[in-house]
Amino acid sequence: MNEHITLEAIARLEDAPDARFKAVMTSVVKHLHEMVREVEPTMAEWEQAIRFLTEVGHWSDDKRQEFIILSDTLGITMLVDAISNQKPEGATETTVLGPFFVEDAKSLPYGANISESGDGEATLVTGSVSGLDGEPLSNARLDVWQAGPDGFYDVQQPNKFPNGNLRGVFHTDEAGRFAFCTVKPAPYPVPTDGPVGRMLLAAGRHAWRPAHLHFIITADGYQRVTTHLFVSGSEYLDGDVVQAVKASLIVDFTQCDDPDESTRFNLPIPYFKLDHQFVLAPEI
Amino acid sequence: MNEHITLEAIARLEDAPDARFKAVMTSVVKHLHEMVREVEPTMAEWEQAIRFLTEVGHWSDDKRQEFIILSDTLGITMLVDAISNQKPEGATETTVLGPFFVEDAKSLPYGANISESGDGEATLVTGSVSGLDGEPLSNARLDVWQAGPDGFYDVQQPNKFPNGNLRGVFHTDEAGRFAFCTVKPAPYPVPTDGPVGRMLLAAGRHAWRPAHLHFIITADGYQRVTTHLFVSGSEYLDGDVVQAVKASLIVDFTQCDDPDESTRFNLPIPYFKLDHQFVLAPEI
Repeated sequence: MNEHITLEAIARLEDAPDARFKAVMTSVVKHLHEMVREVEPTMAEWEQAIRFLTEVGHWSDDKRQEFIILSDTLGITMLVDAISNQKPEGATETTVLGPFFVEDAKSLPYGANISESGDGEATLVTGSVSGLDGEPLSNARLDVWQAGPDGFYDVQQPNKFPNGNLRGVFHTDEAGRFAFCTVKPAPYPVPTDGPVGRMLLAAGRHAWRPAHLHFIITADGYQRVTTHLFVSGSEYLDGDVVQAVKASLIVDFTQCDDPDESTRFNLPIPYFKLDHQFVLAPEI
Repeated sequence: MNEHITLEAIARLEDAPDARFKAVMTSVVKHLHEMVREVEPTMAEWEQAIRFLTEVGHWSDDKRQEFIILSDTLGITMLVDAISNQKPEGATETTVLGPFFVEDAKSLPYGANISESGDGEATLVTGSVSGLDGEPLSNARLDVWQAGPDGFYDVQQPNKFPNGNLRGVFHTDEAGRFAFCTVKPAPYPVPTDGPVGRMLLAAGRHAWRPAHLHFIITADGYQRVTTHLFVSGSEYLDGDVVQAVKASLIVDFTQCDDPDESTRFNLPIPYFKLDHQFVLAPEI
């Protein structure tokens, strides 16, 4: 029914000079039209959709990205991730970027503490970055960020943390090793004060994510990895609101009381420790 | 491939209390996932899509609605219109609202001139509003708006026209008649200074619409009609960028030199005249 409208909309893309743009937009038009044909919206519902998308746009800026939260909570981001981030066996798996990544976080030395406030359970994160054959990657860059024990990222509390908190950039040493101190992350809900929060409520869904640390890892000649490490035993590992959990990314935070390590990294006893090996695939 | 992600995203809508919301969102998730699976976007393309939608949101407010322009230029609005505005034989056909409707325009008396500046070719618009059996509808409301001969709506030139121009609300008299003076509309491009303009450029498409007047007509007990009247012979009647032209909405603007009418409506000679009968279907 009304096929001529869809055929005409697709025909109008015929002269697009870029073949990829033409293919993408043709698919966009085709699938959005199929959706409309299935949903049979009233004009009032169409107006509601326009208002919703507009509001999502108004909530989005460089500190909070409501369109990313929308994509994440509809499973779209993880589908794009699954399709576009296929890594070879043995390489660290990827997951969502999330809406709270900030460009140009401060660069910190080996072992530095990213917790400004110190609130929460002290945690030492150590590990390495290597290639598929185990070759250590020196000077690999790790962008690290996480929410505090109250479930908020620094950018959600600009008055409390004007200079960033629980966020930093580290580089691996000659042996491909890195270390930093932080506090143990806690589960938290994606922000529900915006339009996506209303959508989750209308869907009868909870908004929670299991406890996790964010990483983006880059090294010359290797594929970038955007990923999380999830805290084993955390609530919501089943049922993450953004469907981002992969089994290989769930890691143990072990309670430790090593006095030498405690002194070296200026940590109270006991502290938690997480050690993880990131493996990057070579660029294609 | 990756069907589990889609099935999980759909399963999360299971507890939505409102059946319509659940059906709509299930269709949205299903079709967006199908689109992603067909397009196979890279993460960079996904990021580009997020940025595009965000920008469309930032360009949208109560004076300029870029999401409506996006929906219009992808043929989605006309598809929704075709599905949701099915009128019985003989009733005036509907078309797009467009992005420049403004609530609460000024109410004007029979015959008033909506052109503040007077720039353009003087035009008298007369007509009637009736029901399907020809019964005249008195006190029917006509919301009228159009672009000027330079192709801009008043809200696009807030410094030039702070109080509205080429925009007004009229009511039919006892005999269901209305009349107002204006200037002949001209073809114009949808705004191309925003993200949708870039999309049209990338698609190798022109941005033009044929000359038209906008109407929303409401009367107690009858279905609202949102429509245009297009100027017969106008450029772009074939190829309207928003696919909004329907044959029944193309009307003649006839050149006239009736001295009595010219005096009565305070129009120069010659002037253009358009007479049109709007027919509303009863509320269901």
